[in-house]
Amino acid sequence: MTAMTRPAPTKFKRLADYQELAPEGALDEIFEKADRLKGASMVHVNATTFGGGVAEILDSFVLLMTDAGVRTDWRVLHGTPDFFEVTKKFHNTLQGDRELSFSEEEFELFRFTNEKFARFADLSHDFVIIHDPQPVGLVEYALHTRPWVWRCHIDITDPNPQAWEFMEPFVLQYERMIVSSEAYQRADLAVPQQIISPSIDPISAKNVELSQDQVERILSQYEIPTDKPYIAQVSRFDPWKDPEGVLKVYERVKTQADCRLIFVYNMSADDPEGARIYERMKATAKPYLESGDVLFVRGDDPLLVNVIQRTSKVVLQKSTREGFGLVITEAMWKGRPVVASNVGGIPTQIVDGESGYLVDPYDLDGVAEIVVRLLEDETLADEIGANARERVRERFLITRHMLDYLDLMLSL
Amino acid sequence: MTAMTRPAPTKFKRLADYQELAPEGALDEIFEKADRLKGASMVHVNATTFGGGVAEILDSFVLLMTDAGVRTDWRVLHGTPDFFEVTKKFHNTLQGDRELSFSEEEFELFRFTNEKFARFADLSHDFVIIHDPQPVGLVEYALHTRPWVWRCHIDITDPNPQAWEFMEPFVLQYERMIVSSEAYQRADLAVPQQIISPSIDPISAKNVELSQDQVERILSQYEIPTDKPYIAQVSRFDPWKDPEGVLKVYERVKTQADCRLIFVYNMSADDPEGARIYERMKATAKPYLESGDVLFVRGDDPLLVNVIQRTSKVVLQKSTREGFGLVITEAMWKGRPVVASNVGGIPTQIVDGESGYLVDPYDLDGVAEIVVRLLEDETLADEIGANARERVRERFLITRHMLDYLDLMLSL
Repeated sequence: MTAMTRPAPTKFKRLADYQELAPEGALDEIFEKADRLKGASMVHVNATTFGGGVAEILDSFVLLMTDAGVRTDWRVLHGTPDFFEVTKKFHNTLQGDRELSFSEEEFELFRFTNEKFARFADLSHDFVIIHDPQPVGLVEYALHTRPWVWRCHIDITDPNPQAWEFMEPFVLQYERMIVSSEAYQRADLAVPQQIISPSIDPISAKNVELSQDQVERILSQYEIPTDKPYIAQVSRFDPWKDPEGVLKVYERVKTQADCRLIFVYNMSADDPEGARIYERMKATAKPYLESGDVLFVRGDDPLLVNVIQRTSKVVLQKSTREGFGLVITEAMWKGRPVVASNVGGIPTQIVDGESGYLVDPYDLDGVAEIVVRLLEDETLADEIGANARERVRERFLITRHMLDYLDLMLSL
Repeated sequence: MTAMTRPAPTKFKRLADYQELAPEGALDEIFEKADRLKGASMVHVNATTFGGGVAEILDSFVLLMTDAGVRTDWRVLHGTPDFFEVTKKFHNTLQGDRELSFSEEEFELFRFTNEKFARFADLSHDFVIIHDPQPVGLVEYALHTRPWVWRCHIDITDPNPQAWEFMEPFVLQYERMIVSSEAYQRADLAVPQQIISPSIDPISAKNVELSQDQVERILSQYEIPTDKPYIAQVSRFDPWKDPEGVLKVYERVKTQADCRLIFVYNMSADDPEGARIYERMKATAKPYLESGDVLFVRGDDPLLVNVIQRTSKVVLQKSTREGFGLVITEAMWKGRPVVASNVGGIPTQIVDGESGYLVDPYDLDGVAEIVVRLLEDETLADEIGANARERVRERFLITRHMLDYLDLMLSL
């Protein structure tokens, strides 16, 4: 996204902007708790300034916390490409990959990069929140006199033993470990653990309310046809997101209800596997792509993602494995019925049959059946969607996320 | 450079490591001045963690300053791709490009990004040093009670008027502006200005002394032939580096002295112009590339750059425009005779006929003549090279750079 296709953001978000969106009383509670922490400071450390779910939420979170009255800084670990190769391996191995292994040199580079950053980052805040494995080692090298919290966004319940043997001594130095849902807690780990769900920002470009005019303008700008209903999945071409399975579900749906499938994808330059899946799918879906019934649409513009989620009759997330699945939260917030796999953090979000549908990702016929039902029964689809929106309002907005952190700070 | 082709760095540099390399007394002077600043803190802000000359020097500088006793932090501005598109335009327009222009939206994005970073970066240090245009706006948005210094690494003596009109109000808020050489001072600008030359780190991978064994191993690893003498230019395929002119000089040299030309280049993914020049040069140089007399070698591995600079009979830098030209400093430090254009910061480095040669980049015959003389007279080449090394030792090592900053802090 190099061209300026949309107005640059020029206004800072204020907590007051969430008054009408958050549950009643939420803002007062935030201000009251922030007031009890007056004078305290917090710093968040992660590995990217831009791109990826963690950076996305921090981008709103840190400014809103400061607006609430708690000075909140944000630092991003400095790493070389070599270092990020190593941490990509940690990402995969901590989530279970047994085939990868590490050299002593790679461990050394991990330690060195963390130690170096600790020397010039200044993490002398009252509360230090470290996100994910890349900067986890800072706890060993920085001055550590106040509580440090490790906020783990991935699933480390069944890690590769070599990776875990290296990581555990760092993790054990934290005062608290935060995970996204119960499924990710580890009873065997001698660190106090706590659940904080991630959240979405309801006024970000990806989630903000849009007028009918804006929606139509964006659909036409990206040449999205609207003469038939469509279903959508928003995800990378990752095997765990099972895009090829989505296509199979669509084929089944299509025999019973005429509709399109829009695949909104992101592709990063360093993802050869994604590129392979993409090519394979282009071949498999060829007749549909040619007839215009299946569309592959790049999701670089958050406003486009917003519009497609908002205008889809049904939103799919047929992952075989999932972290929390914020993309589901986004669609639910837009009042759409989501049909998603009963894995990872998804059941935390969706109450089956009430605020969406939980499905077995391997039961293609079963998934297709629910999609068809929702396509055919618009009243049901809208009702499920309305429940979904309320569920997100109560549990998964950034204001709730702020409250969780304020409670955490007050408890440390 | 994704593979780990060299050992990961595992040792932190200490000032003591420079004892034998820096001029006599330099280390004592550093410790003495740092001691007078005991308790003070400094922070540097630039736009990249990795890659590019500024990040390269900061990577050593901040840790050595802290080692000397002055706590030195390092922050990197958070920006989106859109923002960096805008700052690339500032880079070009501030250096004179009249064809580009800015929209109000682009100005707004620049302001917004700076203001946002100011809110979570914590720049409450005793001395704040802002590098280059990208973060120049922080001075407007951060708390500014102590001296702020703008360290400008580019040539802003003849800027595009629209770009300058936008930038000037930011620049005027600084207590001091630092430029790399006299040529870059601006008498018309109401900010106290001062010259601090950039520097090289003599123990970085790119500059560290190597044993004959190491040199031979690296040459053979990269299949650099050594049966003939070679000349080299290390640079991007940038029109201002005039790589096509280098080829023409080589053709002239080749008729008088048999040698090879090694072009050590870097190519970034977002440089279509570089890719075009590269393709053109491959066509022009085809017979030489086929005979193996001209080599295009990627300079991703700093050890390879080190070795090629070290083993070239003559190093060329035939730029038609140049900032300071640290690549020249690097070659001089390795005791090689450099033949370089009399532009930008180059005459600050080379005393013509003593520690290298200053040439007119458009006088191809003249450049070729000096190269041939140096190829034929090895005694002269070595003598010029030895003078070059001494000149760098006295003026362009990181230890001198530290002293300049300590003096600056003591003067503010």
